[in-house]
Amino acid sequence: MTKAQLFDQIKLKRSFLCIGLDPVLENLPEHLLDDEDPIFSFNKAIIDATEDLCVAYKPNTAFYEMYGTKGWNSLQKTWSYFSKDLFTIADAKRGDIGNTSKMYAAAFFNEERSGMGFDAVTVAPYMGSDSVVPFLNHEHKWVILLALTSNAGSTDFQSLHVGGKNRLYEEVIARSSKWGNSEQIMYVVGATKADAFESLRALAPDSFFLVPGIGAQGGSLAEVCRFGLNKTCGLLVNSARQIIYAGKGTDFAEMARAEALKVQQEMEVILHQHDLI
Amino acid sequence: MTKAQLFDQIKLKRSFLCIGLDPVLENLPEHLLDDEDPIFSFNKAIIDATEDLCVAYKPNTAFYEMYGTKGWNSLQKTWSYFSKDLFTIADAKRGDIGNTSKMYAAAFFNEERSGMGFDAVTVAPYMGSDSVVPFLNHEHKWVILLALTSNAGSTDFQSLHVGGKNRLYEEVIARSSKWGNSEQIMYVVGATKADAFESLRALAPDSFFLVPGIGAQGGSLAEVCRFGLNKTCGLLVNSARQIIYAGKGTDFAEMARAEALKVQQEMEVILHQHDLI
Repeated sequence: MTKAQLFDQIKLKRSFLCIGLDPVLENLPEHLLDDEDPIFSFNKAIIDATEDLCVAYKPNTAFYEMYGTKGWNSLQKTWSYFSKDLFTIADAKRGDIGNTSKMYAAAFFNEERSGMGFDAVTVAPYMGSDSVVPFLNHEHKWVILLALTSNAGSTDFQSLHVGGKNRLYEEVIARSSKWGNSEQIMYVVGATKADAFESLRALAPDSFFLVPGIGAQGGSLAEVCRFGLNKTCGLLVNSARQIIYAGKGTDFAEMARAEALKVQQEMEVILHQHDLI
Repeated sequence: MTKAQLFDQIKLKRSFLCIGLDPVLENLPEHLLDDEDPIFSFNKAIIDATEDLCVAYKPNTAFYEMYGTKGWNSLQKTWSYFSKDLFTIADAKRGDIGNTSKMYAAAFFNEERSGMGFDAVTVAPYMGSDSVVPFLNHEHKWVILLALTSNAGSTDFQSLHVGGKNRLYEEVIARSSKWGNSEQIMYVVGATKADAFESLRALAPDSFFLVPGIGAQGGSLAEVCRFGLNKTCGLLVNSARQIIYAGKGTDFAEMARAEALKVQQEMEVILHQHDLI
């Protein structure tokens, strides 16, 4: 999906919501547990109930790998169920030497090879350019590079000043913008770090930011939008637990929809206020 | 496996060789391609031919994920085939917020949950302490943290000076040594960076280093050992392509054995020279 197509979807749906599909068996509604593949049944119901309210879905691979081959199969079925107008993100946080990153790119982008063709994959920048570039050699596919993450540990290394000037997360954006452009690279910027959005937006004025940390992790949508929005929206705001676990009964999907609707409506107001729709 | 048990295996086998199991269908001997699971057939033959010459195996997950569910199944079968006295490493380079890293730890350590119970998993440090600590809560399991990797891109971020003093890779070792000890954490240090071994060994005198980059990537075993060895050996030196693709005919496993034997014999001499056996 191109940036223009993504912005079109945002305008059409009046939403820049990304829903995190991070299911754990222990948290699923009980009536699903007898299904052959409860994880897929759950995802399918959540997708059916929310796909008109969000532009993106983001399964985190950890939640599938935890169940071994069976889990990987649930991930593959979930990807196959996504309709083509959705922006699909494999939240995999991969990254390895060039030859190996090429294999990871095949795993997530090359449907013929792996059975999955996500639009985007999250990548960790620690190993540098040749760990990222192989993901950029796929047309209309995206790298979403970790910049400033939403967790407490982000202060351990990401916030350190490097070479006496930039912080490491700023250096990640500065350097990686030479490896690809804003049609290929997005950045992960945590909603819990709203005060960093102004400087990050200045560093990457045209890039999309994928923003986790709204909801369960405590970030505020209004704060993120204040400096985060740009002329093509430029934000995909992720919510997982708050939406997918809104209810635990047989009406869990309707409860999830109600929660997603609240976020979409808040986003619609914001898009209007910023003259984006 | 504990550090003492690993050192015992090193002394017993007179080897600190780790073999990377990174198979690609295009590179396998042709006669295996009609097998139901050529990747597993290949791994099985390599393991049978080399397991007395090495102490560890390290499948890189990218090479399995590339084939989707089928590939993950080959990885699971490969893990099940390892005998218990081998040190097994999932080279996965994972790392995510705490709640998610817990799932990754289950994926690679918790056999009941995922079907696989590796001894160690490689972890990327970018997201900081809470992305690493969940892996440390498994008894006798190991985190192998990326410090200084063997690829060209390692100079992009890892070598930057942070806070005006340490380089980032040194800071990773300095900080992480407060999260766990040398019975829980090893570090990835590329063989192509032999000149860094002296300072890294000073920072982590008791830790094992997992050393990729010998062979195809150009690193030298003698150089690595000069400063890398410590009183419990402290090195696991990885070789993948040079061994597993030594031959492409029906005798590929014997050819792999011959190549592994060369490395083991070189290691035996070095272990003698350093009075470790």
